[in-house]
Parts: sequence; structure tokens; C-alpha cells
Amino acid sequence: MFGTRTDNRKDRALREVSLERNVMKNAAGSCLVKFGDTHVLCSATIEERVGGWRKGSGMGWLTAEYAMLPASTAKRTPRETKGRKGRSQEIERLIGRSLRNVCDMANMGGEVTMTIDCDVLQADGGTRTAAITGAWVAAYDAFEMWRTSGKVKTNPLYGQVAAVSVGLVGGRLLLDLDYREDSQAEIDMNVVMNAKGEFVEVQGTGEQVSFSRTRLNEMLDMAEEGIGELLRLQREVIGKE
Amino acid sequence: MFGTRTDNRKDRALREVSLERNVMKNAAGSCLVKFGDTHVLCSATIEERVGGWRKGSGMGWLTAEYAMLPASTAKRTPRETKGRKGRSQEIERLIGRSLRNVCDMANMGGEVTMTIDCDVLQADGGTRTAAITGAWVAAYDAFEMWRTSGKVKTNPLYGQVAAVSVGLVGGRLLLDLDYREDSQAEIDMNVVMNAKGEFVEVQGTGEQVSFSRTRLNEMLDMAEEGIGELLRLQREVIGKE
Amino acid sequence: MFGTRTDNRKDRALREVSLERNVMKNAAGSCLVKFGDTHVLCSATIEERVGGWRKGSGMGWLTAEYAMLPASTAKRTPRETKGRKGRSQEIERLIGRSLRNVCDMANMGGEVTMTIDCDVLQADGGTRTAAITGAWVAAYDAFEMWRTSGKVKTNPLYGQVAAVSVGLVGGRLLLDLDYREDSQAEIDMNVVMNAKGEFVEVQGTGEQVSFSRTRLNEMLDMAEEGIGELLRLQREVIGKE
Amino acid sequence: MFGTRTDNRKDRALREVSLERNVMKNAAGSCLVKFGDTHVLCSATIEERVGGWRKGSGMGWLTAEYAMLPASTAKRTPRETKGRKGRSQEIERLIGRSLRNVCDMANMGGEVTMTIDCDVLQADGGTRTAAITGAWVAAYDAFEMWRTSGKVKTNPLYGQVAAVSVGLVGGRLLLDLDYREDSQAEIDMNVVMNAKGEFVEVQGTGEQVSFSRTRLNEMLDMAEEGIGELLRLQREVIGKE
Amino acid sequence: MFGTRTDNRKDRALREVSLERNVMKNAAGSCLVKFGDTHVLCSATIEERVGGWRKGSGMGWLTAEYAMLPASTAKRTPRETKGRKGRSQEIERLIGRSLRNVCDMANMGGEVTMTIDCDVLQADGGTRTAAITGAWVAAYDAFEMWRTSGKVKTNPLYGQVAAVSVGLVGGRLLLDLDYREDSQAEIDMNVVMNAKGEFVEVQGTGEQVSFSRTRLNEMLDMAEEGIGELLRLQREVIGKE
Amino acid sequence: MFGTRTDNRKDRALREVSLERNVMKNAAGSCLVKFGDTHVLCSATIEERVGGWRKGSGMGWLTAEYAMLPASTAKRTPRETKGRKGRSQEIERLIGRSLRNVCDMANMGGEVTMTIDCDVLQADGGTRTAAITGAWVAAYDAFEMWRTSGKVKTNPLYGQVAAVSVGLVGGRLLLDLDYREDSQAEIDMNVVMNAKGEFVEVQGTGEQVSFSRTRLNEMLDMAEEGIGELLRLQREVIGKE
Repeated sequence: MFGTRTDNRKDRALREVSLERNVMKNAAGSCLVKFGDTHVLCSATIEERVGGWRKGSGMGWLTAEYAMLPASTAKRTPRETKGRKGRSQEIERLIGRSLRNVCDMANMGGEVTMTIDCDVLQADGGTRTAAITGAWVAAYDAFEMWRTSGKVKTNPLYGQVAAVSVGLVGGRLLLDLDYREDSQAEIDMNVVMNAKGEFVEVQGTGEQVSFSRTRLNEMLDMAEEGIGELLRLQREVIGKE
Repeated sequence: MFGTRTDNRKDRALREVSLERNVMKNAAGSCLVKFGDTHVLCSATIEERVGGWRKGSGMGWLTAEYAMLPASTAKRTPRETKGRKGRSQEIERLIGRSLRNVCDMANMGGEVTMTIDCDVLQADGGTRTAAITGAWVAAYDAFEMWRTSGKVKTNPLYGQVAAVSVGLVGGRLLLDLDYREDSQAEIDMNVVMNAKGEFVEVQGTGEQVSFSRTRLNEMLDMAEEGIGELLRLQREVIGKE
Repeated sequence: MFGTRTDNRKDRALREVSLERNVMKNAAGSCLVKFGDTHVLCSATIEERVGGWRKGSGMGWLTAEYAMLPASTAKRTPRETKGRKGRSQEIERLIGRSLRNVCDMANMGGEVTMTIDCDVLQADGGTRTAAITGAWVAAYDAFEMWRTSGKVKTNPLYGQVAAVSVGLVGGRLLLDLDYREDSQAEIDMNVVMNAKGEFVEVQGTGEQVSFSRTRLNEMLDMAEEGIGELLRLQREVIGKE
Repeated sequence: MFGTRTDNRKDRALREVSLERNVMKNAAGSCLVKFGDTHVLCSATIEERVGGWRKGSGMGWLTAEYAMLPASTAKRTPRETKGRKGRSQEIERLIGRSLRNVCDMANMGGEVTMTIDCDVLQADGGTRTAAITGAWVAAYDAFEMWRTSGKVKTNPLYGQVAAVSVGLVGGRLLLDLDYREDSQAEIDMNVVMNAKGEFVEVQGTGEQVSFSRTRLNEMLDMAEEGIGELLRLQREVIGKE
Repeated sequence: MFGTRTDNRKDRALREVSLERNVMKNAAGSCLVKFGDTHVLCSATIEERVGGWRKGSGMGWLTAEYAMLPASTAKRTPRETKGRKGRSQEIERLIGRSLRNVCDMANMGGEVTMTIDCDVLQADGGTRTAAITGAWVAAYDAFEMWRTSGKVKTNPLYGQVAAVSVGLVGGRLLLDLDYREDSQAEIDMNVVMNAKGEFVEVQGTGEQVSFSRTRLNEMLDMAEEGIGELLRLQREVIGKE
Repeated sequence: MFGTRTDNRKDRALREVSLERNVMKNAAGSCLVKFGDTHVLCSATIEERVGGWRKGSGMGWLTAEYAMLPASTAKRTPRETKGRKGRSQEIERLIGRSLRNVCDMANMGGEVTMTIDCDVLQADGGTRTAAITGAWVAAYDAFEMWRTSGKVKTNPLYGQVAAVSVGLVGGRLLLDLDYREDSQAEIDMNVVMNAKGEFVEVQGTGEQVSFSRTRLNEMLDMAEEGIGELLRLQREVIGKE
């Protein structure tokens, strides 16, 4: 059986979460998000161009990039300078999809591209869920700046998204796994939800074992609670509580 | 509202599925899987080597590669000769995880690697679910060959896995989407299950909309039915019905 | 001295050849060609664009790509995802040149590109000669579709091409070498001819030995016979016998 | 003529400099260095391996990597995922050489490699000089950790290095240029010095103009002063003032 | 009809050929070969290592690399720094095969690799035939140096090879085509022969037209004459006339 | 202490220098520069295009590329076909900057790019300084050709640049180091100057040691003398003595 969580955290408890805005003076929007010892620097840039496949549509596009600093991990992670790893691309595709789910791309002020860069400064499990949660704040702020400069009338982000992980570790359901827990998890689930309490993305993986419908629903219950708290923190930090 | 499905298929019906074994004389195991007009050639190769990170463990490894022939799609898809696309890597990681879930890697006859190549000859939606379903047959046969040659005593694949997609299209739940349906889907879900009726992998994505717990459970019900049929076909084709 | 050929084939005999048309629903033209156990899937796609160097010429272009599925060979062949191998590029250049020799590129319906993808499903020697022979059928059919859709008045392929290998193995001249024979050949020759009985391409290589003019002419005699048979099969399959 | 410097800085004054240690829990040593709005995260990792060319020498190696976060610049800088830019490689080679100049590689505890990652979080001119100055602190701390763990008896960094830029802008000599100044500079010089007041590296470039010996010496005088201050700050931060 | 050749050269005449030895002090053997305005610098290096596939065989290997300096052509040719072109790889494979045909790889003094670098300084048609002819001289000299240093008892190059092009231009057969002729050729043939007057490699391509057996034999007659002269020059330059 | 220099060269003496013009018939300007056994082939090409960032400016651009032939070095140097080395990019950036310092890019006849290719045929130390010195001659000649063809009224190169290395070897200051000297140098300095006797670029590196201001000035004195001689040779070779 799995022992005590770090800092005596309860099974259903998030780690200490912080969302610090405006941390990069050159980005239109930025947020340093911390889920415990997992720290991700999210920045949102808007460029007045779209990919060839989007030209002439009159619509914008929103995409994400994800990378880890080499020293963010216990064993140094080499830079992806000769081609991208599948894991990184998978994560950045997830971040992009999650944000696009609440973004009105027909109302971005024309054929513009928002790129949300998520750079992991320190990794301790849950980098993708922290990244989604922080990316939303960075995107919100960048679009506010866009709105202030008269490019759009309303913020194209019409809803909120946040994400958290849930896992089964030593037979015990845990919320927001850190690296030690994640590396021992039998089931690993990442959930992205919006402020209506609905799912945007559900990804559950049995690492060693398979899981029943009942188990799945228990995990989603736990995720829902955690995400509710994260959405509240997002609103607080942008001053819309 | 979404209209009639191709060939008047019922909402809860799979496309015509076929699993043809031993189609490549040089592969240890192979299976040409067809989900309607989606055709994927799966082949399993066993090599007596493992990656550096696995050396000295005494255990084997199982991995997958996924690619589309250029003319498999309506618009020609360029070959990935200068780096891999995120989508391809995401799919091959999913195939690999799904098969490893039912594979006893400590009983593969030592430090050997099974590579399952999934090459899409023709794409009409659901290539990843077809690939997983066919990959299982190819892997099973390759391990049987391995067993026959005395390398292992029992087939390391101790369970079955199969996969199917479910989607919400024009407000209607549909099983096993073809390309036309998939490109209009509001919600897209891929489900991998085993013969115990449990989940190995659940990936649900809201493309335009979010979805409730009730909707999620309806979709999983539908997937469960379809996968049951695929698992039965797998057993039939390997002669273990 | 070299022993018996597989299936007691005569020295001057082709392997069993088949040309199956229309095997890929998304390609304009396609042909699964088999020279014994060598199976190549050829598909022809027409795109309404040309490379920069061809723009403004009013002419079309025809090119080929060649690749082997990893499990097509006895020992798994890695995918060429980080740069192409010289052998593959050499073969695809040969296929392209051979087809262009009988193609009226000024009559392709403008600045369009035909790409012929030749993917080896199973390799047992002679993949390049099988590819050329099957590529011709795929290209013919794609151009027929192009003609039917009114893009051109006549099929731009104004002639036929087919190809075969000849080799000296253990001092004996053999037609259409399989892998076992090819790997022991002292001289290896690939010949491409048209329906006028003339050469389009002749490539002869002494692997261990050099060869005289007399030997060269004997080999060409043998190739001429085999190609005559292949050209007849092509006509038969397109219904122009 | 060039106008007022930001914050009414004097021509011979450094920007506000800070060196924050131990900012990354997974790195052996780390330092967030700020030269005004230029922020560079430096981390030092020690791995027990050396490149092939160094094997069997009994000596260690010290190297550096340099990259900019995409949103560190006013216009987003693409990631170097398909090959490195010359500028980045030039800078990381400079950082590596500067640190090796004061490192006893024969006394690193065997064939180990220290990699100093310098990631620019925010760029406002002088990223390479800030990186060198911060890299020294990160390296020092990592080697102290190495010493504490008994791998070496004394810290292999036997001296200090720090760096600053000097430039001629609108005919006026300025110390520690920010981006606005740097982009208008007629002469640009980067100087690396040690605690003996001697040069480790001098790189001066006339962008538009050439420069005399007298001018060169004036610039070196100015650099010397600035570096003296930086060396003092380094000592202060490691507690060896 | 095709007009006068440059310098009133006869149809069956070679351009002025020169073979200058020992032009690179660091190479074991080197030769600057000129076929008129085509200049290729060939150098042969011997390294005491072989590729993994050759290890344990006790045999050596001989390979070639081919590249063009950017300014060797009328329109600047970009460097192949992001992957090799098919044409370059095809040519270097031809050079390697031609030289291996006369090299006793079991007698190279163990598991060593000879690399023959052929760098085109100036291109005016026939770079591959000039490269083969010059490469032989560079290889011969490098192996002589190898023999002198006691590594082998006899020079592993037991025969000579040289190469020339023949073409049909405006209906006229021409030997050793320059760029202007080559770009207008209807048939283009490259022939490699040895001192026994036998073929090592024959590559004939119909660019616009096909060609009969009679035509082929006329072209080979012409090549044979030219190669005879080149072989004589090789012997002269190494002092074995 | 360091012994005798090759050929009893004096400490303050250049190696034998030669600048041979017009050595490549296809380049607009070319120069084979020799500093003793260091031989670099420099060619200048002018193309009527500029990079995207320069479009619409009405100005030209001048850039350089640097590469070593594999056999130019004692140990064969692999070609940079899979990405460029930092050293090569650093050198070509230095060559480009040095030439741009004396080039009026607003007077290049519009949006044209001059590329100066510097290919090292033989390396014996000082390849970058030889390259800069020879590149100037190639660029001058190419611009003269440009002027003669009426593209510009005056040669855009309004000044001269040449370069030399200086080093401290065994405590002794030496000019224009060869490879043997360079590999033992404690301090290595490359200096680029113009005909006004002013500096264009100064790069000094302490390899093992640091250096004082006095030492720096002694080294610059020595460089100045050597460069004066190189500038005189450049004028002589272009006939402007």
C-alpha cells in the first residue's frame, strides 16, 4: 500500500497552487503556474499571420508549444534540437485543443495566431495539467491586451478551462499526483473541464491494470472537485471572482 | 442534424470488419485489418536487442510505429522523412501502451524488442482503433511463432485488447466513425478495452463543445458493445473462439 | 555452380507476375504488382501544382517516391524518418525517369504534378523493376481518370515501359532474380524497355567481376524477352491487348 | 547624439544586477541572474560520463548550452528544434570557454561532465555577459555540492570570471548596453575578466565603423570597472566576500 | 543538328585530360583531375575502423563521398547541410562500386576503411566520370603509402578503372560531353571499364528517346576507345606505363 | 619554451602568402588564398534576391559560408550534412561581418545578395584569417564584374579588410600561427583591420591563462604589422598598388 503523501497532503487535496501573472515583460500575457514543485512558465504571443491552410478564412488560430528546461528534471533532459519527442508533441496538442475549446476563433480580430509557450522550469509531476491551467491565464491576459488595443471588442476566450490529474497508486485514489506518485501509479488520468462542470478532455490510461466503469467514475468525481478549485483560483487571479 | 450513414449503417453498428492473418511472409506475425474502407497493415517483428535504458533488466519491450502511405488519403499526405508529426507519434504511443497493458514483458524470452508496424494503406476514419485491433492479432501470432521456436513457454500476451471510436455527430451518438462523420464530430472518443470488459485507455475530446458525465457514460456504453464484437472477431480469427 | 531455382523456374523464365488495378480508393490510379514474392503497391496522384523551377512553363511534371515497409524484409528495415538513404533515392529517380520517357509532359493539362508512390509491401529481389512495371499501370489509370474528367484530351502516356533484372549467378545467366539469387550475383543488370523493343534505361554492374561485350549482349537478349512478356501483361490488364 | 539612458543611468554604470542562488531544486547548482530586464536562468548539472574523445583521459569536461525562451523577445523567437542557429552556438561556446579558463578539469573527480544550461527568460541586451556571470555562480554551487558529497577535495573552480558589454552609441561610450542601446551601437564589445584583473576573452566588433587603439583601450577601461563590481557581487552571493 | 564542339573537338575525342597527384598534403593519396573545364579534387583517406556491419570480418571497406562546391556551377548550388540530394548519393555510390570492383578488400591490412572524397571545384559535364578516373589515382597512391608503411604487402587495388560519358546530341554521337552538350543530349551513357577492356558499370539513359541495340553498341565502341586513353594516362601518371 | 618555427620563420613574420585571382570560371569573383600550407578557395556569387527580412528595403546583403574539405585536415573531418557545427557558423559569421564593415549595402544595385563561399582545401592553422583576406579579393572582383555590367556605378566595397592571428606560445609572441603552434597556444587572438589602420574585429581568448592589458597591446602591435603587409598584397593583386 502507498504511504504518506508529501506534506501530509490528503488524498483529495491539490498541492499548493499559485498563478502569478505578468511575469514576462515582452509577452502579451504570461503566467508562472506552480502546482507544488512543478513550475511552468506560460506566455501568450499574438502574431498577425496564420498558417497557409487557414489563409483567406478570416479566422484566427490558437496553438501551444511545450518544452522542458534541461535541468527541470532530476536527471538532465537533453534539448529537442534534432526533432521533437512524441511526448512533447502530444502534450502541446492537448494544451492547444483544450484552449481552442473555449476560444471563439472567428472573433480574434482576423487572421492572427496566438501561440502559448509552456516552458517547464521545474518538473514534479502534472506538468501538462499545470500548463493548461496557467496557459488559460496567459491567454486571457493576452486577449485582454488585444481588446484594450482595439483589435477585438470582446475577449475571444468565452469560457474557462483548467486541468488536473488523478491516479490510482497502491490501490488508493489520489488527486494531483507528484512525480513520486505518478511513477508508481497503476492508473493515470488527466482531466480538463470548464466552468459549466463539463468535460473538455478526458484521458485515462491503465499502466499496469485495467479499470472498471465504477473506478472511472470515482476518478472523475475526484478530478471535478480539484478542477473546481483551480477554476476559482483562475477567476481570483484575473479579478473576476 | 446528421443524415444517413454510409450503407444505411445503424448508429450502434460497426463497419464491416475483417482481420486477415499472415499477409507478410517476412514478418513474425501480420494482420491486414479492415474497418470498412480503413485498411491498416500490421506486422510484428521480434529483434534480440533492447534500448540502452532497458539493458541488464532481463525484460523485453514492446513498441509500435504508425505511418500512412501517401495515397491512403484523399489529398496526398507527404512522407515524414524530415521528422515525425505529432499526430503520428501520439498514435503510435497509444498503440504501444495498449498492447503493453496485456503483455508480460518479463516473459518475452529475455531482452528482446517487439516492434509492431502499423501502416495505413487506406484511411477512412478510425485508423488508430483499427490499428490497435489488428496489432493485437499480429503480436499474438508473432509471439506464437516465438513460443513454437522455444524462446518462451507461454505466449506473453496474457490478455486481449481491441479499440473503437464513438462520436457525437449532429447531436447523434455514432459508433466507429468514418472520415466524413469524424470530420463533423462535436465529440470524439477512442476507447481501448480488454476481454474482462474493463478499460485500458479512454480518450475523449470535445472538439466544439464540452460534454457531461451522462454523455460520457452513454458513449462508453456504445464503445463497450462495439469492442465486445471486435474481441470476438479476434478470438475467431486466431481460432480460440 | 548455382543450384535449382525456386519452384524449378527455368533460367529464362519470369516469376509469376500479377498486376492488380484499382486497389486504393483514394488514389487516381493504383496497381499492386507482384513478381513472385516481391509485392509493390504503386499509386498515382495528380496535384495541381509544380515545383518553383517549373512555374510558368505551362508543362507538367512526373515524379516517383519509393519506400520499403519495415517488415517487408527478413531483417526489419528502419523507416527513413531522419533523411533518405541513397539506395531509395536512386531507385525513385530511376522510376521517375523511366515513366517520363513515355510521358508527354506538355500535354498533362497544365502545370500539374503526378507523383507515383511505390511502397514495397514484401521484398524478394527486383523491387525496382516490379515498381516500374506496376507504376506504368497506376500512371495510365490516373491519366485515364484525368482524361475522363476532361482535363486532357488524350492520355499523356504515349508509350509503355516495363522493366526486368538479369544476372549472372554462379556462371549462369538468370532472368528476374529473387533475393537469394541477387545476393549471390556476379553481374546484376536492370533493363527498362518500351513497346518498340528499344531501351529506355540500361544499368549493368559487375559486383565481383567485369563483363565482356558478348556477355552484355546475352543479358540484354534475355531481358528483352522478359520485358516483352511484361508489356503484354500490362496491355492485358488495361484491356488494350 | 544618443539621449538619456533608461532610469537616468550613468554612462559608466551597470544596470541593477541580482544573482539569486538555488532557484531550481533538481539542479546541482543554479542561479537566476538579472542585468536589469535581462533575466537568465543558469543551472549546472554534473553527469558521470564524458564524450568519446575524452574517454580514458581521467579528466572532466565543462560545457554550456544557451537558448532563449520564445517569448523572451519582443517579437517571438522560434525554438531551435530543427538545428541550431549560429548565434546560439557562438554564445554557448563563449560561455564554455570562459568557465573552463578557471576550472581545473583534472580535478573534477574523474571523467565527469558539467553542463551549464543558460536559458534566457527575458532578453534586453547583454544576455551572454549576464549568462557568463550567472553561470559562474551556478557552477560554483554545483561543485560545492560535489565537494560536500566527497567527489572532490577542493572546488575545481580555482578562480572567478564575470563579463560585461561596452559599446559606442551615438559617439558615446556606454557600459552594459540594453537592447535599445545595443541595436544602435556603432561598436560592440564583450569582455570577460577574472579576479586578477586580467582578460579571459575580448571580443570587439565594429558594426558600422572601425575603431582605433585608443578607443579600444577606453572601452576596456570601462569594462574593467564594471566587471570588478560583478566579481564583488558574485563573492557576496556565495558568502566569500 | 548539333553544331561545332568547343575548341573544334572531334566527336570521338576526349577533352584535354590531366591528372595531378599529391595535391593535398594531409591526404594519404590525392589527385586533381581535369576533363577540360570539369575539375574534381579526389582524396583518399584510410581510417582504422569499419562500420558495425563489417566488424569481425577481418576485411576492409572502400567508400566514396561526392559533393560540389557551391560556386562550381554557373548558378550557385546550395550546400547539402540538411540532408543529401539523391543525385549526389547516386554518384558517390557509383564511384564506390567502381573502385571496389578492382579492390581486394580482404587484403587491406585488416578492418580499415578507405574514404575517397570527390569534391567538384568546377563543373562542366562529366563530373562523375572524371571523379572515378581521378579517384583511382588517389586510391592507388594512398594504398602505396599504406604498403610502404608496412600495413599491406601488395597494393590491394589489383586492377585499373576509368570512366567516360557518351551521348547522342542532335542525332550525333559524341564522346565525353561537356555541360552544354549534356544538357541537350537525347541519350546519355556513363561507362566504367577496366584494363582488360571489360565493363565494370554501364548506365545508359534515354532522356527523350529510346535507343536500339545497334545504337547501344555504337556508344559502347566509342566509350571503349576513350577509356583506353584514360587508362593509359593513369598508368603514365603513376609511372607504370 | 617553444622551439624553432617551421622554415626558421621569425616570430613577427607572416608565412608565405599568395592570393591567386580568377581561379573558378563560374564564380563572379574568386581567389585561392594561401597562408603557407593553409589553402582556402574563396568565391563570390551575386544573386538577385534577398531574405524575407530584407525585402522592400532596396538594400543588398553580403553573407559568407565556410566549410572544410574532409581531407583538408590530418584526421579526416566529416562533412556537415546533418546540421552545422558551431565552429563553422562562428567563422562564417565573422567573415560576413568583416566584409559588411567595408561594404556599402545601399549601393549594391538593389536587393541582391553576395555570398562568399570559403572552402578550406588544406588546413594548417589560421583558416579564418586567410579566408577573410582572400574573401575580400573575391568580393572585390565580383563587384568589379557587377560594375562593368552596369549594375552599379562604383564598387560597393569602399574599403579594404584583412586579418591575421597572433598567439602566445610557450611564453613567446608569434604572428600568423600554423596548426602546430596554434594547438599549443596559451593565448589566441584573431584581428581584422582596415586600411586606415583601425580595428574591425578583435577576438582574443585565453586558452589556459588570462592576459594583461600590456600583453594585449603587444599582440595588437604585432597583428597590425602583419595586416599592413596583407593589405599591401591585396592592393598589389588587384592592381591598385
